[in-house]
Amino acid sequence: MKATVMYGAHDVRVETVPDARLVEQTDAVVRVTRACICGSDLWPYNSMTPTRTGNRMGHEFIGIVEAIGSDVRRVKRGDLVVAPFAWSDGTCEFCQQGLQTSCLHGGWWGGTELDGGQGEAVRVPQADGTLVALPVGPDHALMPSLLTLSDVMGTGHHAALAAQVRAGKVVAVVGDGAVGLCGVIAARRLGAEQIIILGRHPDRIALARTFGATDVVSDRGDAAVERVRELTGGLGAHSVLECVGHGEAMRTAVGIARAGGAVGRVGVPQEPTIPDAQPSFYANLTIAGGPAPVRAYVEELLPDVLEGRIEPGRVFDRVTNIDGVPDGYRAMNERESIKVMIEF
Amino acid sequence: MKATVMYGAHDVRVETVPDARLVEQTDAVVRVTRACICGSDLWPYNSMTPTRTGNRMGHEFIGIVEAIGSDVRRVKRGDLVVAPFAWSDGTCEFCQQGLQTSCLHGGWWGGTELDGGQGEAVRVPQADGTLVALPVGPDHALMPSLLTLSDVMGTGHHAALAAQVRAGKVVAVVGDGAVGLCGVIAARRLGAEQIIILGRHPDRIALARTFGATDVVSDRGDAAVERVRELTGGLGAHSVLECVGHGEAMRTAVGIARAGGAVGRVGVPQEPTIPDAQPSFYANLTIAGGPAPVRAYVEELLPDVLEGRIEPGRVFDRVTNIDGVPDGYRAMNERESIKVMIEF
Repeated sequence: MKATVMYGAHDVRVETVPDARLVEQTDAVVRVTRACICGSDLWPYNSMTPTRTGNRMGHEFIGIVEAIGSDVRRVKRGDLVVAPFAWSDGTCEFCQQGLQTSCLHGGWWGGTELDGGQGEAVRVPQADGTLVALPVGPDHALMPSLLTLSDVMGTGHHAALAAQVRAGKVVAVVGDGAVGLCGVIAARRLGAEQIIILGRHPDRIALARTFGATDVVSDRGDAAVERVRELTGGLGAHSVLECVGHGEAMRTAVGIARAGGAVGRVGVPQEPTIPDAQPSFYANLTIAGGPAPVRAYVEELLPDVLEGRIEPGRVFDRVTNIDGVPDGYRAMNERESIKVMIEF
Repeated sequence: MKATVMYGAHDVRVETVPDARLVEQTDAVVRVTRACICGSDLWPYNSMTPTRTGNRMGHEFIGIVEAIGSDVRRVKRGDLVVAPFAWSDGTCEFCQQGLQTSCLHGGWWGGTELDGGQGEAVRVPQADGTLVALPVGPDHALMPSLLTLSDVMGTGHHAALAAQVRAGKVVAVVGDGAVGLCGVIAARRLGAEQIIILGRHPDRIALARTFGATDVVSDRGDAAVERVRELTGGLGAHSVLECVGHGEAMRTAVGIARAGGAVGRVGVPQEPTIPDAQPSFYANLTIAGGPAPVRAYVEELLPDVLEGRIEPGRVFDRVTNIDGVPDGYRAMNERESIKVMIEF
């Protein structure tokens, strides 16, 4: 089968690899119908040390179950399923409390040991805990939005929950990538009164406005902090969604948060420390978040997608096939594209 | 009147200063009957750059109202009152939501502009918002415990709330100073099932046990993390109270927190960043806390003090008078004393 392998920075190849197959009796094999490229894939795309073996890529996919191990009960051959960006057993202490990204028997797609979503098929460990069957066919018009339940929509929702978004609150979203845009959707969905997006790409800002952003701040650094303060009566935002991951974004997030407010961080941290320990302390800020347990959110968000109340699939502005994946990385990295969907 | 003035590291003097007096119509003047020295006073005691003017010291006191401005309504001459470690108007947006340490018209005791608690009298700005009248006489046997409502008991309670302590939870307290000990009281009071104190001073550990600590970890660094993991089935503590403020304590706090858990920090941060941004992210930890709005907690904690259900006053193991304050700093700094009370 064909799959995407990253060998080093800017070195993404589509290669023939061994077919996905059952290994454990709790596995399923899923033939991928849709997948995508994630903003977080761009971190290694820009920094990976070259290797000979390469890393299999992709952690967001929808597909059809082709085979199941003898212990699999909740999904069956022929089901159309969505896979969260982490696999999990669904039964451990952490899964039971809805923190599947800390599953005691779970893990992450791709790398050197497992298949990735950017390939024709995937061996899915812990299939019962991981996969969610979808009540539609594989070519349904809502497929792009359903695909976002594997990561970016659930991640935006997680950022909003971590930032304690509630009805009537003032919310700021740092970052206008796909996760930031889904953060706007999530904040609106949870009833935020004012939603300020911090970003500077006209196409993304336009989409943010259709998703519910009420204000746009395109400055950076201190100027951005000052502008958000102006927009919030000098007090800052109750809830800040940090959807980037680098230190400057976190500094901005802390700077624009209101005393007693919360920063929900979902951008993978690129620095070893969290900046501004003292300002965040004196303001009694809460800093929360991490890898989103999107598995916990699929059932909650699914009805809103199926009934058209939210349209996170609009973050996809380019579609390619498996052979177009390397150029998809390039296009996202050069900000030609917000997010690239892969059709099989 | 006599008051404590710090001129530089290890240079604390008791001097005659101008008498406290009303300035604004919202002020009161309080004659101090009890005060104390705070662990946070030891940060400048060890690091203050010498100055000519010096800083007035002390932010924890009980006293009798001697005079009030014409706009003061809630306290009257002769009232015995406790003062939180920050003064606040009681009416702004932040005070109304119980975050008086971010009061828009509030501030901190001492320094070069205001009186401090370690003196014979204090001008209290925003007296109506700040002071709480106590329903006892000035020589009541519970005075030490009542005095802790000005800071350390309320701060321990704040750490426990920020760390999301709930009934049945596993709690760890980093630091065996007066705040850490009050954190043990707070965790027990909120129903924690297991309370692990991290500390190494036998007198403090013994007190922690009487306050409800179930386990003691006297290791440091990685060994402390490993020991707490052993005590918690490998998973770590749901709630960690960080009651020290230096980077090593925060690293330990993050290291011993369970995935999905929370660190409540009340130690004043001595470093510009929060360590271990990535481990705390991958574990979806919440980091919260800051200067405790102890004014918000006085009414809640007061009945438990008056009815003897909690005895935070036991953290005082030395009593002195105003002339003994410099030696009190020395004794606390050399860990001869947990916390020094000053009687007037």
